[in-house]
Amino acid sequence: MQEISGGIGNVPGFKSAGISCGIKKNGKKDLALIYSEKPAAAAGIFTTSRVKAAPVLYCQGILPSKQIHVVLINSGNANACTGKQGMDNILYLTEVLAGHLKVSDKTVLMCSTGVIGAPLPVDKIETAIPALLQNLKSGDNPAPAEAIITTDLTIKQAAVRLNIQGREITIGGMAKGSGMICPNMATMLAFVATDAQIKTGVMQDALQAAADKSFNRITVDGDMSTNDTLLLLANGASQVTLSPADPDWPLFCAGLDLVCERLAQLIIRDGEGATKVIEIRVEQAASREGALRIAYQIANSNLVKTALFAADANWGRIMGAAGAANVDFDQHKVDLWIGEILLVENGVGRGKEVENQVHEILKKADVLIRVVLHQGDKQATVWGNDLSYDYVRINVDYRS
Amino acid sequence: MQEISGGIGNVPGFKSAGISCGIKKNGKKDLALIYSEKPAAAAGIFTTSRVKAAPVLYCQGILPSKQIHVVLINSGNANACTGKQGMDNILYLTEVLAGHLKVSDKTVLMCSTGVIGAPLPVDKIETAIPALLQNLKSGDNPAPAEAIITTDLTIKQAAVRLNIQGREITIGGMAKGSGMICPNMATMLAFVATDAQIKTGVMQDALQAAADKSFNRITVDGDMSTNDTLLLLANGASQVTLSPADPDWPLFCAGLDLVCERLAQLIIRDGEGATKVIEIRVEQAASREGALRIAYQIANSNLVKTALFAADANWGRIMGAAGAANVDFDQHKVDLWIGEILLVENGVGRGKEVENQVHEILKKADVLIRVVLHQGDKQATVWGNDLSYDYVRINVDYRS
Repeated sequence: MQEISGGIGNVPGFKSAGISCGIKKNGKKDLALIYSEKPAAAAGIFTTSRVKAAPVLYCQGILPSKQIHVVLINSGNANACTGKQGMDNILYLTEVLAGHLKVSDKTVLMCSTGVIGAPLPVDKIETAIPALLQNLKSGDNPAPAEAIITTDLTIKQAAVRLNIQGREITIGGMAKGSGMICPNMATMLAFVATDAQIKTGVMQDALQAAADKSFNRITVDGDMSTNDTLLLLANGASQVTLSPADPDWPLFCAGLDLVCERLAQLIIRDGEGATKVIEIRVEQAASREGALRIAYQIANSNLVKTALFAADANWGRIMGAAGAANVDFDQHKVDLWIGEILLVENGVGRGKEVENQVHEILKKADVLIRVVLHQGDKQATVWGNDLSYDYVRINVDYRS
Repeated sequence: MQEISGGIGNVPGFKSAGISCGIKKNGKKDLALIYSEKPAAAAGIFTTSRVKAAPVLYCQGILPSKQIHVVLINSGNANACTGKQGMDNILYLTEVLAGHLKVSDKTVLMCSTGVIGAPLPVDKIETAIPALLQNLKSGDNPAPAEAIITTDLTIKQAAVRLNIQGREITIGGMAKGSGMICPNMATMLAFVATDAQIKTGVMQDALQAAADKSFNRITVDGDMSTNDTLLLLANGASQVTLSPADPDWPLFCAGLDLVCERLAQLIIRDGEGATKVIEIRVEQAASREGALRIAYQIANSNLVKTALFAADANWGRIMGAAGAANVDFDQHKVDLWIGEILLVENGVGRGKEVENQVHEILKKADVLIRVVLHQGDKQATVWGNDLSYDYVRINVDYRS
C-alpha cells in the first residue's frame, strides 16, 4: 500500500470539478461535482440527528445503489430545516443535472453544507451547472475539495494505491469539516471513491468499519449536524472485483481505513480555532464502551479544553471529566499520563515539579493523554482539540 | 410565605462565621463555619461523579444524621484527588474543631471547593479555627457566603419565613458556584438550614425534590465536579415539628423549593463570563426525560451558546442541537419560540424579518427559548448561559 498525493480525482474513471456559483458571498468556490461515466456502486453513512437536512433524506432514499453516476455538492447553504421546498429543490436540480448528463434522476446524489434554514439558491446552482460540467476533468484536482469547505482553513484530500490481483487499484477521497465534529461525523462531508468493483452490501459494512475508526472518533465541540454524510463510490474501472472472501479484502479495507483516517485527522487538525490536537486514550477499562464514554467526556469538557489551550497541567479537570462520564471505576487506581510523563498515580498528583514538566509538553501542537483505569483490558481512543478565544470568535462571527 | 433578606445566619438557633485563613493567595475570605448549639438533623445530596473529593466521601459516611453541630467549609482547595492523606486531613481537622466545641467528631461535617489535587493546607486551617469560632454570630451575616465562593462574582444567599402551626419558622441558605454547573450540581456548594424539626428520612426526600427543581436544572458548561454538595440542616429551634402527614408540609416544601430555586438562579446568573441567562423549555414532548435531554443538549451546545452571545437568531443551531439529543421527534412539527416571537414553524424558519425581531430580543439579559414538539403533553425546563470570550479567559487563567 502506497499513499499518493491528491484525492478523489486521482481515482481512475472518476472526473471532478469545483467552481463558484455565487452562494458564498466572498466569491469562493461553492459547487462541486464527482462524476463516473461507468455507473458506480455507492453506500453512505449519515447523521443520526433527528433533524436531518433535505439532501440527507434524499440520499438515504436512493442508497445503497449500484447505479450512481454523479454527486452534486454545494457549500454555503445546508438546505436543512427548509421543509417540503427543500426536497423539491433537490428533485428539481438533480433532474436538471441528469438531463444534461443524459442519465436517470436516480443516479444523481446531492449533498449540502453551510447555514441552516435558508432556502437553497436554486437559480444560482442551475445557472452554474453547464460551467460545472465543462470544468470536469480526470486526474489530480483540488478544485472540488476547495468547493466543499466552509469555515475550514485547509482543503482535505487523501489517496492510496494498492496492488491487488496483479493490478493497481486506487482509493481517494476528500472531506470538509472543522467544527461540530462529534461523535457522529457532525458537519462533515466526506467522499471516497475507488476503481475496485464491490457489492453494495459489503461496501456498507466496510465503510461503517472505516468510519468507526476515523470520523466517529473525532470531536471538536460535541455537537452533531443536520448534514453529515460519508459516501463511498466504487466504479470497477480497474476491473478488479473484491469481496470479503478474497484474500486481498483485508488489504482493501486497510486502504479504505487509511484514507478515512487521514481525512479525519485533517478535520481535527483544522478544528475551529484549535491550536492543538489532543489524542485521548482510555486504557485498561472494564468495557470498550465505557472507555469511549470517558474519552469523549474528557475531549468535550470545556474546562479541560481551556486548560489545554493554556498549556496548564490542570489534571484535576481531566480527573473531574473522567468521573463525570457516568462509568464506574475506582478513582484510587487511576494513572494519568501526558506524553511520556506520569502525572497522576493511583488518583493522586505527583507534584509541582512533574506539573512543570507537563506544562512544557502541553505547549506542543500534539498532545497524548492516557487515562489508565487498571480495571480490565479494554481501551478506546478519541481525538479532540483545545478551546481558544478564536473558537468563540469564529462561532460568533459565522453568520455575520 | 415571605422572602426575607439574608441567608443561613437568619435562621434562629444557627450561628455563622467567615474569615480568611490564607488558602486564597489574594487574602480573601476562605473559611466558613455553620454552627447549631442544638444538634441538627442533616441530609445531603452529593456529586454523582466517580471521582469524589475526600470531603464528599467523608460527609457521605456521616449522613443522614440527627446530631450535626457544625459544618466547616473552606474554599480555594477542593481536597479532591488527594488520596488517603486527603481523608486523614479531614479526620484531623474535624477532631480539632470538635475538641474546641466539646462535641463528638461525628457531629462535624466538612466541605471544600477550589483547585483539585493540591494537598489541603491543614496548618492554615487549624491555626485559624480559634479566630473562626470567635467570629461566630447569630443573625444576618454575609461573611460565610463570601468565604465559600471561588470564581463567583457575587455572594449567594436566600431566605424565607413561613407561618406554621401559629409559629414562625425560617428557611435560609447560601451557595457558591458559577462554572461547571450541570447536570448534577457540579462545582456547587449549597447549605440550607431551618429551625423546623424534621425527621432525617423525610428531609432527604424533600431535599432531593427541591434539588430536582433547582440545582439539577441549571447548566453552565455541562461538566460535573468532584465536590458538589447540598446540605440541609434542621435544628428544631422553632419547636415546630413537621412531617408529610402535616397539612402544612406542602408549605414547608414550597419554602424549601423557593430557597433552592433562588440560590440556583443566583448561580446561573453568575455563570463564568456569561452575559445572559437562557431559559430553555421543551414542551409537548412524548416524555419528560426526552424533553429534559433535548433541553440540556441545547443549553450545553457551544454553537448555540456562542450564537446567543452574539445575539444571532441562528435558530438552525438550536434545531441542530435538538436533533442531536438522541430523542425521537418529527422535525416537521417543531415550533421554536424566542420570547413572544414564533421563529420557526413546522420546522421551517419564518424569514429574515422575524430573525431581525428576534435579534433585538436576544440582546436582552434574559432569554426564553421554547421548543414545542407537538408530540405529547410532557415538558422540561433548564437554565443555561451564553458562551463569551470571558468564559475562555476565566478558565484559561484559573490556576495562574
